[in-house]
Amino acid sequence: MLAEKRRSALDAIFFPKAIAFVGASNNMNKWGFLILHNLIMGGYEGPVYPVNPKEKNILGLPAYPSVAAIPHPVDQAIFTIPAEQIPPAIAEAGRKGVRAGIVISAGMGELGEPGKALEAEMVEQARRYGMVLVGPNGQGYACPQSKLYPWMPAFLPPHGPIALISQSGNIQTWILQYLERVGFGVSKTVSMGNAADLQAGDYLRYLKDDPETRVIVLYLEGLNQGREFFSAAQEVSPRKPVVLVKAGRTEAGARAARSHTGVLAGADRVFAAACGQAGIVRADTLEQAAIYAAAFAGIPLPAGKRVGIVTGGGGLGVIAADACVAEGLTVAELGPRTCARLQKLLPPWWVPGNPVDMVAGLGYAGPREVIPVLFEEGEVDGVIMIGLGWAHGMVETYLKHSPLRKLTDLTPFIADRLKRDREYNNRLADLIEKYGKPLYMVGPAVAHAIERGWEGMSDILRRGYMIFPTIESAVQAFAAMAEYRRLRELHQAPEVRPAAPAPVRALER
Amino acid sequence: MLAEKRRSALDAIFFPKAIAFVGASNNMNKWGFLILHNLIMGGYEGPVYPVNPKEKNILGLPAYPSVAAIPHPVDQAIFTIPAEQIPPAIAEAGRKGVRAGIVISAGMGELGEPGKALEAEMVEQARRYGMVLVGPNGQGYACPQSKLYPWMPAFLPPHGPIALISQSGNIQTWILQYLERVGFGVSKTVSMGNAADLQAGDYLRYLKDDPETRVIVLYLEGLNQGREFFSAAQEVSPRKPVVLVKAGRTEAGARAARSHTGVLAGADRVFAAACGQAGIVRADTLEQAAIYAAAFAGIPLPAGKRVGIVTGGGGLGVIAADACVAEGLTVAELGPRTCARLQKLLPPWWVPGNPVDMVAGLGYAGPREVIPVLFEEGEVDGVIMIGLGWAHGMVETYLKHSPLRKLTDLTPFIADRLKRDREYNNRLADLIEKYGKPLYMVGPAVAHAIERGWEGMSDILRRGYMIFPTIESAVQAFAAMAEYRRLRELHQAPEVRPAAPAPVRALER
Repeated sequence: MLAEKRRSALDAIFFPKAIAFVGASNNMNKWGFLILHNLIMGGYEGPVYPVNPKEKNILGLPAYPSVAAIPHPVDQAIFTIPAEQIPPAIAEAGRKGVRAGIVISAGMGELGEPGKALEAEMVEQARRYGMVLVGPNGQGYACPQSKLYPWMPAFLPPHGPIALISQSGNIQTWILQYLERVGFGVSKTVSMGNAADLQAGDYLRYLKDDPETRVIVLYLEGLNQGREFFSAAQEVSPRKPVVLVKAGRTEAGARAARSHTGVLAGADRVFAAACGQAGIVRADTLEQAAIYAAAFAGIPLPAGKRVGIVTGGGGLGVIAADACVAEGLTVAELGPRTCARLQKLLPPWWVPGNPVDMVAGLGYAGPREVIPVLFEEGEVDGVIMIGLGWAHGMVETYLKHSPLRKLTDLTPFIADRLKRDREYNNRLADLIEKYGKPLYMVGPAVAHAIERGWEGMSDILRRGYMIFPTIESAVQAFAAMAEYRRLRELHQAPEVRPAAPAPVRALER
Repeated sequence: MLAEKRRSALDAIFFPKAIAFVGASNNMNKWGFLILHNLIMGGYEGPVYPVNPKEKNILGLPAYPSVAAIPHPVDQAIFTIPAEQIPPAIAEAGRKGVRAGIVISAGMGELGEPGKALEAEMVEQARRYGMVLVGPNGQGYACPQSKLYPWMPAFLPPHGPIALISQSGNIQTWILQYLERVGFGVSKTVSMGNAADLQAGDYLRYLKDDPETRVIVLYLEGLNQGREFFSAAQEVSPRKPVVLVKAGRTEAGARAARSHTGVLAGADRVFAAACGQAGIVRADTLEQAAIYAAAFAGIPLPAGKRVGIVTGGGGLGVIAADACVAEGLTVAELGPRTCARLQKLLPPWWVPGNPVDMVAGLGYAGPREVIPVLFEEGEVDGVIMIGLGWAHGMVETYLKHSPLRKLTDLTPFIADRLKRDREYNNRLADLIEKYGKPLYMVGPAVAHAIERGWEGMSDILRRGYMIFPTIESAVQAFAAMAEYRRLRELHQAPEVRPAAPAPVRALER
């Protein structure tokens, strides 16, 4: 269990009252400039004190020669100074009452000895003063709730229900970009760097009780403290899904990992078994980790592996059926009663069965009528619905540039399409909430819709639901969620689900 | 071989001199409105004659009561009238000298008898007059070179080097959207519909000699004329890669396909063998088909399966190594001479080997110095390079909104970043062209870069090269291209490669 003192110090990472920036710079090519710029641009509302003995003013803020010289209380310090200066600077910050340090600086443990000695000295200083440390050799962290982005990447992900902890800054950025593409932001995200002090298990335990976090994503290459990590995961996973992507699954990958971090990747089968026992969901790729997280954030868990497929295009249904088999799911058989009910809703030439091919186009009647039948008859554990109302939302952007605006008033047409789009999308979200069963909606244009801020698409994302960019990603998420549910039942963990998904603000930038 | 007369009629599809639109409408909810709107909005420069006996004027154009009543020559006709009116309308168009008909109307062969009889009658009328027909029951086609978009989707893909022929309109739209996400447009794209007249093989043979087309993508559910199709593919594939995605690979999928089209999907292994013999590259998913096509369009073929991995992040290299093994590729072993040459370029703590982890960040030196060593030493058949200059291009958009613009002049900083970005990207393209070896560049932000029109990213896309959105997609494309090369050598087909990739206009909308 995370000692109360350390938990409170962790609070100083995500909710600092005042920040000292040690190594702040006016040189636009230095991290001391770029990270401070992000910190200011993100909109953090507390005081920020740049520390640099050579400057009077940095990015419009008065600078101080040292942390000790700051005439106000400070509870967080960010360090971008050279590695050899870090241990005394940590001690100085500790004496000042700083409880959390973010060490961006590289040149420590990752270089072997004597970097490791320097790193150990840094941790010793921090512990002496009860400080916790992020890093070193990370790219920083972000907490959108606090408008806090003291990090390297040149973008500010929005607030969302997903926490992301990564052993690699590069990969943190990649996963965040995959999340953005499906409309999701983060509650908290940390680049662990060398994890000299705070470990994956510490972050996990902290996030367990974080009300902003519904799903935790981890990227790991190796583990310093494997037993402690799995014990933390086992504690957290019944409450919140923990999605892990780990490099080094194959022999070639493990060899590469060894030369990268010096950590022995070990037999993947052993690692996989430990994950299963700890209730961890593994993702195979970075993109998949993002998609799983977004799916877990809003969609109810399927009770089993029986899939209903509702499709606006026959070929899309065939592709989905193929994908279900590949992922170990079952394309559910529909009984005669279900088919009879569906036949009343569909054209006379409809061929009864699953996939439910809407034949004459999905139209707007589809979800209102067909999906409830599948949910009510109980032969499926969830529905994959292919083809969405996005095509109509698209019309808006498209017709903006129409030369026909001169000839015809397109306003009522566009307004009508958007209204139907919005009703359609809200109806889909309503169905999930009414039946408490999972609906996996697939449409290839979701990334575009998010980029362009299409109104017709926004509602469903604002309600916290996911639209999958490919059929395969939806099918894989279904399988991962069914497996998570199975693992949780295996461990007889109580079901804990918040009443409503956390809001997604990706669309409100 | 495609009879010369039919080829010339096919020209009337993609390069019509004048178009009659039979079933044009002022009702904004009808395809007769929406498709005509697309046709006008696309910018087609020839005359368009709406045909509708009840209207005087449609979308600003004078309407005619019949095709016969049009007092000008017409070589293409588009039909959105009810199915039962189609055969006499085709005959009328034939008498008028129309050489190509696009039949959008549904309600024919796909409904079984008597729809099939109607369809046969339509084809009989067309053949009597030497007309070729697209459809029926398709969503139309597009030829950006002619600014021609007589189709349903509410978007106009740009001109590009890829031809897409699809048995499903829905899936055509999906593949086009996946192509757009990676920055690629099309030379020609046709929704075959029921393929009552023109078959997949006809389109293949036509595209073989189309100078605008470098790669052909096909989506098929079943084949009316299997032998003829494979014979066409075998003729085309040595000259241009043919990428095929086919639904119904598994038993569940095949069952779904049967109920969708009535076509027996047959054993996939038999189909796969036929594809191999015909030199066809199969894609597993719609997104993969788009990514393969974009890759084939610009990247030289790898001579074998030995991969060099150059990465800005160690973890990313580990993930790439894992993915290579999963796809049957070899993570190449680098000899002592190569490692010695690389060691001179990299920091002292670099761990020699493949993946080549740049350790201290990829920087701008990476491609200029490291990739040539790999290409020159000949131990790799191609390089996957992970992490691109896109982060710098991103800075532009990002800093537009910076509150620091008031305090600091960011213009030189931004200009410098963009300049370096552009140089970096052009250097990468130069390397491909200088060595004639494949370089697979991976960056997760490519979709965003395209959406936002980031200048730093544009150059490389304008030169026709692909940036892969995920590591796995690059690795899979490498494997597919190596396999295509192998098949071509197996069949002793001569290597035919255009000198430079066709321009991509996705960024110039």
